[in-house]
Amino acid sequence: MQIITSLKQMQAICKDYNKQGKTIGFVPTMGYLHEGHLTLMKQARVENDVVVTSIFVNPLQFGPGEDFDRYPRDVKQDEQKASEMGVDYFFYPHADDMYPGSTTTQLKVIERNNVLCGKKRVGHFDGVVTVLLKLFNLVCPDRVYMGTKDAQQVAVAQGLVDDYNMAIEIIPVPTVREIDGLAKSSRNVYLTSEERKEAPELYKSLQAAEKLIDSGEKNPNQIISHIHQKLEKLHAEIDYIELYTYPTLQPIEKIQGRIVIAIAVKFSQARLIDNIILGDNTIINA
Amino acid sequence: MQIITSLKQMQAICKDYNKQGKTIGFVPTMGYLHEGHLTLMKQARVENDVVVTSIFVNPLQFGPGEDFDRYPRDVKQDEQKASEMGVDYFFYPHADDMYPGSTTTQLKVIERNNVLCGKKRVGHFDGVVTVLLKLFNLVCPDRVYMGTKDAQQVAVAQGLVDDYNMAIEIIPVPTVREIDGLAKSSRNVYLTSEERKEAPELYKSLQAAEKLIDSGEKNPNQIISHIHQKLEKLHAEIDYIELYTYPTLQPIEKIQGRIVIAIAVKFSQARLIDNIILGDNTIINA
Repeated sequence: MQIITSLKQMQAICKDYNKQGKTIGFVPTMGYLHEGHLTLMKQARVENDVVVTSIFVNPLQFGPGEDFDRYPRDVKQDEQKASEMGVDYFFYPHADDMYPGSTTTQLKVIERNNVLCGKKRVGHFDGVVTVLLKLFNLVCPDRVYMGTKDAQQVAVAQGLVDDYNMAIEIIPVPTVREIDGLAKSSRNVYLTSEERKEAPELYKSLQAAEKLIDSGEKNPNQIISHIHQKLEKLHAEIDYIELYTYPTLQPIEKIQGRIVIAIAVKFSQARLIDNIILGDNTIINA
Repeated sequence: MQIITSLKQMQAICKDYNKQGKTIGFVPTMGYLHEGHLTLMKQARVENDVVVTSIFVNPLQFGPGEDFDRYPRDVKQDEQKASEMGVDYFFYPHADDMYPGSTTTQLKVIERNNVLCGKKRVGHFDGVVTVLLKLFNLVCPDRVYMGTKDAQQVAVAQGLVDDYNMAIEIIPVPTVREIDGLAKSSRNVYLTSEERKEAPELYKSLQAAEKLIDSGEKNPNQIISHIHQKLEKLHAEIDYIELYTYPTLQPIEKIQGRIVIAIAVKFSQARLIDNIILGDNTIINA
């Protein structure tokens, strides 16, 4: 595995593979890799000639009060893990190179952003699409692998690709979970041991909601209040429980078609999110 | 020469050339081709394996009161001319395919836009960068040829490429002129025969300005007022006479480095623009 920090070098290598007709699978991450990320890399490895992963804690997608400074980082361990997954290129750019100064344009998300995590994280998804567009141009991937744990992020990335006719396939990969159902996340390290015991309730509440829908419930409010009853028992603050069409993230009066049910709760030091995507005969995240 | 209207087909063809390691030169136009465009195609032909030109009158870059509906169009003649220049692919997409509906993101120009033509044409350059980003993703060019007659457009396109690390070289090509100096433009057909006789004064005023600078004049206001004296004699309304750094388009107190002097005047039915770029030992548009 080759470690690349230079933007120009990364682009030259990838362009060269393009010219050789080799397919590139790309896994953009913020590092502190866990099994969720590794699953993306494993799938990329199977489906492409070349696999690139990027490790970049993108300052643009963190708000003023958010956890940019204390976001967990361990690049040496990340190298080790990515290498074991058969990654070919470990792209680790510097923020100063990614954002060398003022820009002449601005890319903003105007749909799919004012719900779920985007509602309070103002500008978050602007930062996400900006870094994705840059990374896509640097890595020139055929396929980009993203975990549906960040269902909204996948929806926004798909919107970006569609809006600008990018020849890139966004591959949503189901959430990887601990044995007790807790979605893997870099932020799980912030949980106290008591909170860690409660955290699997997030997914259990989503599974219960799925059962309700399977048994014929069509009313989103019923689903939401059912989940609410379960989550309010936790020693955590409920941030949101929402249900939308997917990937368009529009409100819905009657459950039908493809939907996402997504939740976020705040424990003392960790804000956790989880979701399930249902319907359209495809459960991509269960 | 192959005529392509399908976005997917254009992209598949270009991706295929990428994979073969063939270079693609791209000339984006709004059609009604004149010698200016043909010069771009000729240069693209010399420097690349494959030449693509697009003909697309982009609705997004016209304001409400502007000349979108009456912008001159003659696609049959354009086909003929492009073919004679050795263009390989004549990309002629439909507006409904380029803009199939609402988008989830918005791309805005925030620098280099509030001067010259951008000052009054609010949103114009947002439309330009949006269509360029789409076309770049559809045509996957190595080099993009643009006329410096639209000096601000070239500067904005270069900003777009820089902001998002695109592996594309923007090639500015000097303005092509009639024998009497009038810059070639699709809009010249709107000139009355009287106006046509006066129109070469635009370039003459710029040449006079260049002479003044060559003889040591460092004050932008002196240059502007010199041009003003010349243009106010025309039966036309002066829209602007401006002098900036290039390509950053910042105001300047003392003439040095690379600069653009740009003018716009309104005749009865035609608004004409012209410019010269000077300094830095390179006169790319003289």
